[in-house]
Amino acid sequence: MLVVKKFGGTSVANKERIYNVANRCIEEYKQGNDVVVVLSAMGKYTDELITMAKDINENPPKREMDMLFTIGEQMSVALMAMAMNKLGVPAISLNAFQVAMHTTSVYGNARLKRIDCERIKNELEQRKIVIITGFQGVNKYDDYTTLGRGGSDTTAVALAAALHADKCEIYTDVDGVYTADPRIVKNARKLPQVTYDEMLELATLGAGVLHNRSVELAKKFGVKLVVRSSLNTNEGTIVRRGHKMEKMIVSGVACDKDAARVAVIGLKDEPGVAFKLFNALAQANINIDMILQSVGRQGTKDITFTCSINDADDAARIISDSMDYESLDVNKEVSKVSIVGAGMQSNAGVAAKMFEALYNANINIRMISTSEIRVTVLIDEKNTDRAMNAIHDKFDLGNE
Amino acid sequence: MLVVKKFGGTSVANKERIYNVANRCIEEYKQGNDVVVVLSAMGKYTDELITMAKDINENPPKREMDMLFTIGEQMSVALMAMAMNKLGVPAISLNAFQVAMHTTSVYGNARLKRIDCERIKNELEQRKIVIITGFQGVNKYDDYTTLGRGGSDTTAVALAAALHADKCEIYTDVDGVYTADPRIVKNARKLPQVTYDEMLELATLGAGVLHNRSVELAKKFGVKLVVRSSLNTNEGTIVRRGHKMEKMIVSGVACDKDAARVAVIGLKDEPGVAFKLFNALAQANINIDMILQSVGRQGTKDITFTCSINDADDAARIISDSMDYESLDVNKEVSKVSIVGAGMQSNAGVAAKMFEALYNANINIRMISTSEIRVTVLIDEKNTDRAMNAIHDKFDLGNE
Repeated sequence: MLVVKKFGGTSVANKERIYNVANRCIEEYKQGNDVVVVLSAMGKYTDELITMAKDINENPPKREMDMLFTIGEQMSVALMAMAMNKLGVPAISLNAFQVAMHTTSVYGNARLKRIDCERIKNELEQRKIVIITGFQGVNKYDDYTTLGRGGSDTTAVALAAALHADKCEIYTDVDGVYTADPRIVKNARKLPQVTYDEMLELATLGAGVLHNRSVELAKKFGVKLVVRSSLNTNEGTIVRRGHKMEKMIVSGVACDKDAARVAVIGLKDEPGVAFKLFNALAQANINIDMILQSVGRQGTKDITFTCSINDADDAARIISDSMDYESLDVNKEVSKVSIVGAGMQSNAGVAAKMFEALYNANINIRMISTSEIRVTVLIDEKNTDRAMNAIHDKFDLGNE
Repeated sequence: MLVVKKFGGTSVANKERIYNVANRCIEEYKQGNDVVVVLSAMGKYTDELITMAKDINENPPKREMDMLFTIGEQMSVALMAMAMNKLGVPAISLNAFQVAMHTTSVYGNARLKRIDCERIKNELEQRKIVIITGFQGVNKYDDYTTLGRGGSDTTAVALAAALHADKCEIYTDVDGVYTADPRIVKNARKLPQVTYDEMLELATLGAGVLHNRSVELAKKFGVKLVVRSSLNTNEGTIVRRGHKMEKMIVSGVACDKDAARVAVIGLKDEPGVAFKLFNALAQANINIDMILQSVGRQGTKDITFTCSINDADDAARIISDSMDYESLDVNKEVSKVSIVGAGMQSNAGVAAKMFEALYNANINIRMISTSEIRVTVLIDEKNTDRAMNAIHDKFDLGNE
């Protein structure tokens, strides 16, 4: 069996943790399996590199930023190889040049195009554990690139796909994917498995265990993902193609407190108003989430949308510069609460049941948005935890 | 004109120094010249990496050590490129993979075999300053290697040779090559030029400005070397092929206090004794410098040699384990003082003049060794500074 194991920066932040990871990998290796390990930079080292760069040039060229960033993962993999060798197991570290991890040309946010597997396969054939730098690639100019947020997860999934690995284990500081954040909902339950689509919705909605991009990639290539903890040997959650859609209707409740609501009241009711508004925001790279348009008073309409709290003031400024309207309201004290579940759409009444839970808890719903496998409501931020628990109980998610 | 400039770790140890180097390179660039910069790791960063590695594995695999080491220079070149870009000049950093700096396979002590210049030339044609990692290479397995001591100097000279550069400037913390160490001999004079051979002897004898290997390489390919300070704009010393041998007989006085004398008295006077002794030392990687063999009393002989102070006790132990002799004496309170000069041999009386200077200063000579362009004496360490000054004055080196 070939297993790809990915460990984040926290898991390799110091000597003890490096040895912890080394031992876990060796355990797998000693069962006769081939082991490929993908590592991030140690602890907060990437942040240290950013500070170092900004001190020299507050606006450094992205190409040189990537040149600097890549040393973080190279440090991790070299030290890990030393630790494994110390434990008596042959191990070798490889960077993006050595693997040949081909990406697009965009510095800071490249996408993987192709991975040459020859070198990795050769090393595995010699029964070595192969330790590979996450997050980094090489573009057609022979320059380092980095993959942006969630980059190391993406590296691991792409390697698992290219090597036809039996599974790709993503080690993190939580046990797996839960029906809700266990810090908010006490009887939250770890899910033994979720589908790619559910995981995608959960990731988008702030469950934060896996980055969207890596889940999309896993879905595309059918890579069997396992999310588990680097601190214990619990089973974790398997992410795979949907099988039991009928049975498991709602798989989890998620919340995202990084939401602001911007309401534009009294826009002219004529064609192109929505286009003009959202185009202006897109030009400024402001990502919009939920959108609601309603007919206002007498030949006007109102548009309400949500965006990240950081973007809210910029959005308001742009709108006041480019639109005609009566009034504008920004509310940063809101949060999004969602239920996610494959096969939700084919089960009538799921959304209604969620709304009922909120009604019983006397929580006002400010906006609603749905997808095939998700229902999201915008509520006052102060009600978030109560809402999570009410919904979790209503769907009896604490019991299998 | 194409100029290769090499700066050591001290010259790029912090932000101010990085900008100092950036400005010097830009000055050259603005004169219309092509500039290639070779950098070492910042300050004591390589030592920090060693500490980090030893903490994980006190005997780390050399291959992984090199993987770790190379991040030091990559950090320097990326930050330097950022500084130059901040100053408005296009600059690009390249590592050993990007240049294609081919070396032999020996980790930790590789030798450069071939440098691909295509990428560098392309970047220079676009009028960029090209900043290259010193000290590192890539071997036939596509693994990082490092060049060992003096590695960055070697990288710079090899690049100058491969690119047919007009000159290779080695920036250091001294002004150039002096007739003697200015800290010891007050009226020591900076030499406007020395030959490769003189520089080689001076380097070996502890003048410490340039590493032997880089001088040998410069000699082989006829690279015009300039040794100068990164702290001022003084002219420095040019190292080139010998031209004025007859004129400049003695070019400098050097001393090396890292010397210990080991005297083995009363060895059997039979064939193979010297071989047996020095072979045993060679097996233990102990480098021997001066050797003196004399006939001892009644069918015995005495062998005296010098080695590094750190190796002296090991040498004594090895000899006592492997040889038969009457007595053994280790003296660490000695130093080597040498005069160096191309064309010295064809000028009778140079050695005699040196000995006369020491006699006049009442300094006892314990051993003598000579080469074509060098005379070295071993004296008591306490007399070093007096000896240096006496010889310097005798040859009137303070005056041109």
